[in-house]
Amino acid sequence: MTTDHFSRIKKAINELSQEQSYKSVCHPHFKDHKMPSLSALEQVVNLSREILFPGYYGDSSIRPDSVSYYIGVNTENLYTILVDQIFAGLCFMCEMPEKFDLSERKSIAHDYASQFISKLPEIRRMLVTDVEAAFLGDPAAKSKGEVIFCYPAIRAITNYRIANALLTIGVPLIPRMISEMAHSETGIDIHPRATIGEYFSIDHGTGVVIGATSIIGNNVKLFQGVTLGAKSFPLDENGNPIKGIPRHPIIEDDVVIYAQATILGRITVGAGSVIGGNVWVTNSVAPKSKIIQFKPRDVLYTEGGGI
Amino acid sequence: MTTDHFSRIKKAINELSQEQSYKSVCHPHFKDHKMPSLSALEQVVNLSREILFPGYYGDSSIRPDSVSYYIGVNTENLYTILVDQIFAGLCFMCEMPEKFDLSERKSIAHDYASQFISKLPEIRRMLVTDVEAAFLGDPAAKSKGEVIFCYPAIRAITNYRIANALLTIGVPLIPRMISEMAHSETGIDIHPRATIGEYFSIDHGTGVVIGATSIIGNNVKLFQGVTLGAKSFPLDENGNPIKGIPRHPIIEDDVVIYAQATILGRITVGAGSVIGGNVWVTNSVAPKSKIIQFKPRDVLYTEGGGI
Amino acid sequence: MTTDHFSRIKKAINELSQEQSYKSVCHPHFKDHKMPSLSALEQVVNLSREILFPGYYGDSSIRPDSVSYYIGVNTENLYTILVDQIFAGLCFMCEMPEKFDLSERKSIAHDYASQFISKLPEIRRMLVTDVEAAFLGDPAAKSKGEVIFCYPAIRAITNYRIANALLTIGVPLIPRMISEMAHSETGIDIHPRATIGEYFSIDHGTGVVIGATSIIGNNVKLFQGVTLGAKSFPLDENGNPIKGIPRHPIIEDDVVIYAQATILGRITVGAGSVIGGNVWVTNSVAPKSKIIQFKPRDVLYTEGGGI
Amino acid sequence: MTTDHFSRIKKAINELSQEQSYKSVCHPHFKDHKMPSLSALEQVVNLSREILFPGYYGDSSIRPDSVSYYIGVNTENLYTILVDQIFAGLCFMCEMPEKFDLSERKSIAHDYASQFISKLPEIRRMLVTDVEAAFLGDPAAKSKGEVIFCYPAIRAITNYRIANALLTIGVPLIPRMISEMAHSETGIDIHPRATIGEYFSIDHGTGVVIGATSIIGNNVKLFQGVTLGAKSFPLDENGNPIKGIPRHPIIEDDVVIYAQATILGRITVGAGSVIGGNVWVTNSVAPKSKIIQFKPRDVLYTEGGGI
Amino acid sequence: MTTDHFSRIKKAINELSQEQSYKSVCHPHFKDHKMPSLSALEQVVNLSREILFPGYYGDSSIRPDSVSYYIGVNTENLYTILVDQIFAGLCFMCEMPEKFDLSERKSIAHDYASQFISKLPEIRRMLVTDVEAAFLGDPAAKSKGEVIFCYPAIRAITNYRIANALLTIGVPLIPRMISEMAHSETGIDIHPRATIGEYFSIDHGTGVVIGATSIIGNNVKLFQGVTLGAKSFPLDENGNPIKGIPRHPIIEDDVVIYAQATILGRITVGAGSVIGGNVWVTNSVAPKSKIIQFKPRDVLYTEGGGI
Amino acid sequence: MTTDHFSRIKKAINELSQEQSYKSVCHPHFKDHKMPSLSALEQVVNLSREILFPGYYGDSSIRPDSVSYYIGVNTENLYTILVDQIFAGLCFMCEMPEKFDLSERKSIAHDYASQFISKLPEIRRMLVTDVEAAFLGDPAAKSKGEVIFCYPAIRAITNYRIANALLTIGVPLIPRMISEMAHSETGIDIHPRATIGEYFSIDHGTGVVIGATSIIGNNVKLFQGVTLGAKSFPLDENGNPIKGIPRHPIIEDDVVIYAQATILGRITVGAGSVIGGNVWVTNSVAPKSKIIQFKPRDVLYTEGGGI
Repeated sequence: MTTDHFSRIKKAINELSQEQSYKSVCHPHFKDHKMPSLSALEQVVNLSREILFPGYYGDSSIRPDSVSYYIGVNTENLYTILVDQIFAGLCFMCEMPEKFDLSERKSIAHDYASQFISKLPEIRRMLVTDVEAAFLGDPAAKSKGEVIFCYPAIRAITNYRIANALLTIGVPLIPRMISEMAHSETGIDIHPRATIGEYFSIDHGTGVVIGATSIIGNNVKLFQGVTLGAKSFPLDENGNPIKGIPRHPIIEDDVVIYAQATILGRITVGAGSVIGGNVWVTNSVAPKSKIIQFKPRDVLYTEGGGI
Repeated sequence: MTTDHFSRIKKAINELSQEQSYKSVCHPHFKDHKMPSLSALEQVVNLSREILFPGYYGDSSIRPDSVSYYIGVNTENLYTILVDQIFAGLCFMCEMPEKFDLSERKSIAHDYASQFISKLPEIRRMLVTDVEAAFLGDPAAKSKGEVIFCYPAIRAITNYRIANALLTIGVPLIPRMISEMAHSETGIDIHPRATIGEYFSIDHGTGVVIGATSIIGNNVKLFQGVTLGAKSFPLDENGNPIKGIPRHPIIEDDVVIYAQATILGRITVGAGSVIGGNVWVTNSVAPKSKIIQFKPRDVLYTEGGGI
Repeated sequence: MTTDHFSRIKKAINELSQEQSYKSVCHPHFKDHKMPSLSALEQVVNLSREILFPGYYGDSSIRPDSVSYYIGVNTENLYTILVDQIFAGLCFMCEMPEKFDLSERKSIAHDYASQFISKLPEIRRMLVTDVEAAFLGDPAAKSKGEVIFCYPAIRAITNYRIANALLTIGVPLIPRMISEMAHSETGIDIHPRATIGEYFSIDHGTGVVIGATSIIGNNVKLFQGVTLGAKSFPLDENGNPIKGIPRHPIIEDDVVIYAQATILGRITVGAGSVIGGNVWVTNSVAPKSKIIQFKPRDVLYTEGGGI
Repeated sequence: MTTDHFSRIKKAINELSQEQSYKSVCHPHFKDHKMPSLSALEQVVNLSREILFPGYYGDSSIRPDSVSYYIGVNTENLYTILVDQIFAGLCFMCEMPEKFDLSERKSIAHDYASQFISKLPEIRRMLVTDVEAAFLGDPAAKSKGEVIFCYPAIRAITNYRIANALLTIGVPLIPRMISEMAHSETGIDIHPRATIGEYFSIDHGTGVVIGATSIIGNNVKLFQGVTLGAKSFPLDENGNPIKGIPRHPIIEDDVVIYAQATILGRITVGAGSVIGGNVWVTNSVAPKSKIIQFKPRDVLYTEGGGI
Repeated sequence: MTTDHFSRIKKAINELSQEQSYKSVCHPHFKDHKMPSLSALEQVVNLSREILFPGYYGDSSIRPDSVSYYIGVNTENLYTILVDQIFAGLCFMCEMPEKFDLSERKSIAHDYASQFISKLPEIRRMLVTDVEAAFLGDPAAKSKGEVIFCYPAIRAITNYRIANALLTIGVPLIPRMISEMAHSETGIDIHPRATIGEYFSIDHGTGVVIGATSIIGNNVKLFQGVTLGAKSFPLDENGNPIKGIPRHPIIEDDVVIYAQATILGRITVGAGSVIGGNVWVTNSVAPKSKIIQFKPRDVLYTEGGGI
Repeated sequence: MTTDHFSRIKKAINELSQEQSYKSVCHPHFKDHKMPSLSALEQVVNLSREILFPGYYGDSSIRPDSVSYYIGVNTENLYTILVDQIFAGLCFMCEMPEKFDLSERKSIAHDYASQFISKLPEIRRMLVTDVEAAFLGDPAAKSKGEVIFCYPAIRAITNYRIANALLTIGVPLIPRMISEMAHSETGIDIHPRATIGEYFSIDHGTGVVIGATSIIGNNVKLFQGVTLGAKSFPLDENGNPIKGIPRHPIIEDDVVIYAQATILGRITVGAGSVIGGNVWVTNSVAPKSKIIQFKPRDVLYTEGGGI
């Protein structure tokens, strides 16, 4: 009976509209204020990429005469969108949104956005070193152009450097959303709070995780599936995790870590070390170490191919 | 010569149009009936998310006065789209589509869709526990709002709980498509047939695989790259895999499994156990066990950083 | 002060417009010529899929009467788009774009595109074997239709076979972009230069990496997270990596490799072998070997669940 | 006060939701059935144009080899969309939609749609004469291609000939919607029930109105603003207009009517006549008449330009 | 020479960027504030139509159970969009935008928008009479549903009644934009300041113009091309037009005006009069008058069809 | 029977694919070359409007600092799109497209496009006078901003001035398409070949037609429905219209023409004249004339409102 379907639906709507059923996860967001928007943040990332690597993205031709027009317009547009998103982020994180002063928040958003834009030249400088590292480190790469255009790691590192700059300025929520965008696109999950030096490269990259308090030196290379993670973390007297304690590894300069290695806890991997794939490392490693997995076992073969 | 290109193309079109070249993979889909649509299923997922977590997705403001309007419209729209997609799924799986009774299928689709909607309140209840688990388990999380809005695992688990409800009702194909959408977006691959308890969390998540006959208790936490998989499976006398046999692990309550661990076969990981990263486990593990990888080897360092 | 924001922005625009700050990564792309376009390449892939698997994608119904119309139009459209993208790829890779002869390049683009189209029947033949392998190898699969429609590995292998055909013809850049599209969508990273036989399957797939000089026989199956990678590579006298040396594994017929295994270097995994998950293999393996990880250690359990 | 706004809105929603306030204009449309869709009908018109004038619209190239592929696919797509829209139109006009037999309606929709498609060759033949008339009649036209591509009258006449064919077959509502689409685009309002011969042309066209029972011979030319309308119409004993009585003019062969002329009632304008602009004609006109407005008056000029 | 083109372009950019070349028409719009948006106003009109005529527009099904959900959500969305657009309109008209108080304007926008929404029930009541008049007055109309769905005049009158309500509340600019949207779509140009009674109908409508100070009674019917316009208007001592003087006609109840008639100046057309087509009327007309054009002349026929 | 529908469709496809049925209207367009595109020309018009009236269209804010960036980017984009469209137009008009030299055409397209851009400053200067005329001539106008933003005549005149500049340079087809876009949007049909002076205004505008050889002086004002048209035109010995003969009116400075007036043939309306509405004028008019329609007749009133 049709009416049966409709009575089911009506009953479900009524239950789902009960405040107690959603209030513990309901976001108390400020009336008339929009949530941060994934599609606006995609524009933020795309405009930043166009500004940082002129000629690769968007429609811009880059005759010397006209490059400044494009950078000018892209930067203005970036600024406008960013102010809105930062403002939305500030409202999102506010616990009692009814109370705060809107025009003050708006002016903070303008300040943060313009600070970010003033950091773009430095971000470009760092990214140029990352591109160089990827190019030199991959025998399959034909040109730096191909690296910028095709390599997922460059996208992930670009998002990280943007997100890290925003987070350092004090912008809430938005940096995390930007790094999750790269995570979804590339499978590379770099927490925006991590600290990463120059000439950083990631090969292939799917499954890489770099935790919030990680510190990575210069000229470090990671392969796919590498985790720089935390061990279990201490709880306070109420059983809640104590936030803000350094709990991820320090990777010094010139380290290479092969595929699927898991490095956990506030340990140090000394400069120039090589960590083999698929290892589980929870203790510090001296400089110039080379660590590989214990030899696998040969076991009896049985017809059928299985295990 | 231009004509040369066109004769190549013409020849290819003719070959590709030969029925014998495509018939072994050709889908005998019912005339005038659409295939299930990925973009319609994205709407299904988005509408479900808006209904389950009011205020986070879509344009909805959530003044107490108006929340029921939004839930009402979103639920009606969800119902309409879902009826079409379930109907398409029913047609897809039918081996002799010419024969079946269309109006009966249509009425089944209505029934399944309204059953699903009546399960949404329970789905919300479960997801609230998952959000709580993710929030408590991550020292970097600032609020439940951030968890819902940013964490890929919440997206993957939401899709899983939706897909599992549909599959339990009896809907074919659609559940698998919904879980693959989350797989593509997050790198987390949860089979909709798996059984998963409350307070389930996945950290980072890229590369997680949870097989079709897995059973997971309450308060379990997985890290990125964890596999709950099958060993080789028995074949019947014709050499075809025997379907429907339990072949994935049982993970009891309060278990934590670290990054890249591979747990294979119908084994049991006892309650409260901790499985370290990068291990290969094919035998059952007693409750409160702690298993970690055999120590890696230190090998001789040679200049150049390679292995 | 508002003016303060604007002076920051103005200063940043000026710095970012300085040629020296972007010239090392600037792409010297030919005036008036477009860069290759991701969205055009998505159309290339979608049209190819519609042609290869008629009835699954797009709006095409496949009455025997009309299937040739659809294959005809899709192939014509594919040709047109592909000519443009190949042309863009040829221009991209050119170091001194001012010098080359446009109409010659255009005619090369036409030639390459029509060569590719004449390879589509063979690509379909290979893919049909891959679909069959996936169907037979997965007890959860209900029909070949479901495999084609839902399994990410089929998408990744389709993109690989397309990209490999283009690369073999001599098309630059575009093959890499097409394989990166699948990488982003599925987490499976197959280099278009790899050589892969018939009846190839990948289960789940996230994190799989198959390097450029890998050679894979017939009837090989990989699970998620498997790497067929390179060890460190030799440098020339200038310290640059020597390009084009075989540096990835050879996997012979009928091999199965379980989740997260890392196989590195120009070694051979002999026919019929089984490689267990999470192992690190850098030496050749005899035919019909079975290799698994050294047993993990049981360590002392401590309350709290951590490591 | 904010609450004041919300109480206003809430009150309005309540009033607007009262059934008695909308029921006299409410459309009793059949549950689960869509209304006819303007955007679907735009596709109908665009596909028809592509089929009728190959090479002008859409992406089709028209190499002799490939033209049949495009016509095949466009015709199949047209058929599919048209079946849906005709079905929607049949449901719309039904007074007691609960009662009728769905599958019968569906089968009528298929029949009407395929009848329409079988009329396309004749529609093309007629339109070719209209293009010729426009080309010969306009000294500013450079080629027939320009006429087809640019002249709004060709668009309006195309829509009319499509709508008229549908209406003649018996399709309700849709023909009117298609003619209103041309009306909105061109300002030319031709009722689909009008009868119009070959070699018909309209110059400029804005404001032309051709009523439902008009009959127009061959080789007739109208200028902008011409009305072929009705005088007041007879009422039945209840004061309602009597429907279906011929009430618009008959325009015989080879007539020209200049801008803004208003021809009203079931009168006949004899073959070969010329009607000057801005006249008001409510009586029949003999063949080969020439009718122009009474001379305007010269009145006293006053400085300032006004009247 | 290529450089020649670029120097032309560079020169043009420089000239066009000179402030004196655009400052007389430059809009001094308030920094960071958007201009009113045509596409947002289309949403305003579409949402209003969905609310006023439930079941005709949008996706809404109108089961009695669910109609209030749709009206609720549509009204909330209308309110949100309208607040933004009214705010943009208030900023646009401000001569010295730097000076005014933003939060005051914002609160005015909220007030105006909610006032408008509280007028929607009365707007619906008026429109129902207009639909009835169109239905009764057109022998070709099959149902009120067809009138609402297809007749351009209903669209134009709906926009007028919306625009008039906004203008009466005090909203600047937006009403004019809404009436111009209908003008572009239908060729009917009704100034939002005009006063129009119940049961108003326009047949065909292209070219109708109704000036700002026109007053139209109940049950009036206009045909296409009718102008209710102004004669020349008085200038003040500086030669500028004196604004705000009544300068358009008064049309009393039950008047019919046929196609292309031009009625100019603050004159009165008495109740129940009939004005024939193509006449030029600049003097008042007594009630129950019937006015038609002076008879056209028959002139000598000459072969060739011209004039 | 279903097969019946399909056989109808198949038969129609075959007939429609016969070359003789479409060849007389078939466009012999050059292989691989696109037709001119309406949506690209909409971009041309929108970019031109943004450049000509900075701050009204698009997203541009117009801080003095940034206005040149926006004009720079918009002009570069306009140039790129225009080159393609002019090239498409050149190919369209070519009778034997196989023969001509592509690179020569391409270089003509570049030349024409850059010539057009160098005319933009003069186009802006003219349009500023038109805006002023509209503002001064309409007592309902509140600001020049409102005139630019809302008045359809400004859109039509802008398109005319753009189209006229292109046509004067020698661009084929495109100018006509641009003027038809304004015709469709506003109901105002100005042939791009017409010559129109400064301070030109059109009030309301629907139905205005200005023919190809019209010459209009400075400070002329037209109302809706005014035609500046041709009488019948002379034929050559083959019965074809002789092209290029002046056949439309000359309107001298300071003339006002009221609604629906039809002025036909190469006559002159002397400076400062006023032409009343609804008149039919086929003879020249001395300067400072005032011409109005012959008085309408009062006829016997009959109950019922009809004529």
